[in-house]
Amino acid sequence: MLIDGLQYANWSEKIFRQMREGGVDAVHVTIAYHETFRETVLNFEKWNRWFELYPDLIMKGMTAQDIDIAKENGQTAIFFGFQNPSPIEDDIGLVEILHTLGARFMQLTYNNQSLLATGCYEANDTGLTRMGKEVIREMNRVGLVVDMSHSADRSTIEAADYSDRPIAITHANPHAWHPALRNKTDEVIRAVTSRGGMLGFSVYPHHLKDKSACTLTSFCEMIARTADKFGVEHLGIGTDLCQDQPDSVVEWMRMGRWTKSMDYGEGSASQAGFPEMPTWFADNRDFGNIADGLRAIGMGTDEIAGIMGQNWYRFFDENFGPRSAA
Amino acid sequence: MLIDGLQYANWSEKIFRQMREGGVDAVHVTIAYHETFRETVLNFEKWNRWFELYPDLIMKGMTAQDIDIAKENGQTAIFFGFQNPSPIEDDIGLVEILHTLGARFMQLTYNNQSLLATGCYEANDTGLTRMGKEVIREMNRVGLVVDMSHSADRSTIEAADYSDRPIAITHANPHAWHPALRNKTDEVIRAVTSRGGMLGFSVYPHHLKDKSACTLTSFCEMIARTADKFGVEHLGIGTDLCQDQPDSVVEWMRMGRWTKSMDYGEGSASQAGFPEMPTWFADNRDFGNIADGLRAIGMGTDEIAGIMGQNWYRFFDENFGPRSAA
Repeated sequence: MLIDGLQYANWSEKIFRQMREGGVDAVHVTIAYHETFRETVLNFEKWNRWFELYPDLIMKGMTAQDIDIAKENGQTAIFFGFQNPSPIEDDIGLVEILHTLGARFMQLTYNNQSLLATGCYEANDTGLTRMGKEVIREMNRVGLVVDMSHSADRSTIEAADYSDRPIAITHANPHAWHPALRNKTDEVIRAVTSRGGMLGFSVYPHHLKDKSACTLTSFCEMIARTADKFGVEHLGIGTDLCQDQPDSVVEWMRMGRWTKSMDYGEGSASQAGFPEMPTWFADNRDFGNIADGLRAIGMGTDEIAGIMGQNWYRFFDENFGPRSAA
Repeated sequence: MLIDGLQYANWSEKIFRQMREGGVDAVHVTIAYHETFRETVLNFEKWNRWFELYPDLIMKGMTAQDIDIAKENGQTAIFFGFQNPSPIEDDIGLVEILHTLGARFMQLTYNNQSLLATGCYEANDTGLTRMGKEVIREMNRVGLVVDMSHSADRSTIEAADYSDRPIAITHANPHAWHPALRNKTDEVIRAVTSRGGMLGFSVYPHHLKDKSACTLTSFCEMIARTADKFGVEHLGIGTDLCQDQPDSVVEWMRMGRWTKSMDYGEGSASQAGFPEMPTWFADNRDFGNIADGLRAIGMGTDEIAGIMGQNWYRFFDENFGPRSAA
């Protein structure tokens, strides 16, 4: 069972085929950064067309059981998520509408303050807003997972606390290993994992120690240490793979329509575009390298199986539907 | 099994309770006349809230099997439809999106020319448009039923012909019985029923012989004659009940935002508002009167069961999903 907790590729038949080659059973795919509701629906429409065109490669995932069906059929199950609450605009009723359409994760913020909480690049973190609490309750009710990957620390801890179902950080690494603003302090990771939540390890170079030059061993040792601290059952992969995207897309991710000025996000003026991927993870065919790396540093078979997919599977199974069915 | 093929009530707990009292197992409910996509989503949201508030009375219907579940739980299953293609705007991708949200019927026109076909009040009926044909194919693919209740004759016959799945006239009566513009000629009824489609008999007074004064016997004899001509298995009820609606709503239905002038639709300056219902059908508790009336004119038990719900059930079962599953 191989599940990736986050990708935002420039999707194409080529990438769908690479997912099959790499044995990827399921991926959580971002379909909104700054999109309005209507724009997000257009992204669902685009995927509907791909499901129609490539039924031998991909299928829409709504429940964990869909991964079993995909596996049986030799397809990859695609689960949808938003890195920003922009798709719900200011309308709490859109939480259920978007869940019905297939959304399974929603970040409460993307770097900036949102209507719901504070993003990780703001100077002041005021925690959950009034609407933020209402929306978490509604997300809990329908089974839309709170994702705090791009949120500030206090907001994340408050969300983990306020939510009565486990939340996730789908793509980030421990701040102690690489102190990027996007990486998470032990206190934040503990708040999430101690309540049954998940952390997905990112291979996006800005989240890696030594960035693009990060070694596989360093990455895997970091995973092992995190497992020792917080429990291996709460850990998965969330590569943040942005394969084949032009640099204009990282500008959209960072700047949306909220600024007219250049914002480099995790990059800088000298490295403005997408960074080069580490040699051991270029695309969906390279998950075996991570599993091999974990084996090489002495991790057990069951633990590796958990990290590579079983833990996400269990989390999907428990959190993608109404509470009563959970 | 009791199924109503169309209602547009001013929904309330009172009406939901009357549906239970009347033993109504399922209703096709109109949620769009002139609404844009976003406005239609707001109507889905309103219903989501009602499903949350009144789980003991109603549930959302997506498949015929949901009617069995509703029956088992003592609820009424609510199926959604549009009397106009306005919710898909000019975007064929919205057909699948709206089907995913729960739409199961869509009229290609509401009285006027639409992007898809010609309405029953236009002077010239040019049949299916280019987009109309594309949309019928897409509706066939996902399992969204073509409803031609408010369409012109040529357009209806072309739709029945072009569609590779059965279509419906959810709420109208034979023109031969009462020659309203909204009622259907034998040629139209034959085009629909001979291809497996359904006709739902309306009790909306403008569709009745002698309008509000129509007798139950006259209504039931008309049904029996229609059964003799076209086959009882293609017939159901589609009351067009607009219970508790203020007259401002019939103006919205008729005029939407397409005119600034008064349009009386099936009414007239002297009878501009909702007409008075016939004495034998005031609300959802009165379906028994129709069944009794059919029995009184000598119709058999199985035929009556078909008309009161079994025929719609079979039609829902065959037409509410992708073709492969049908």
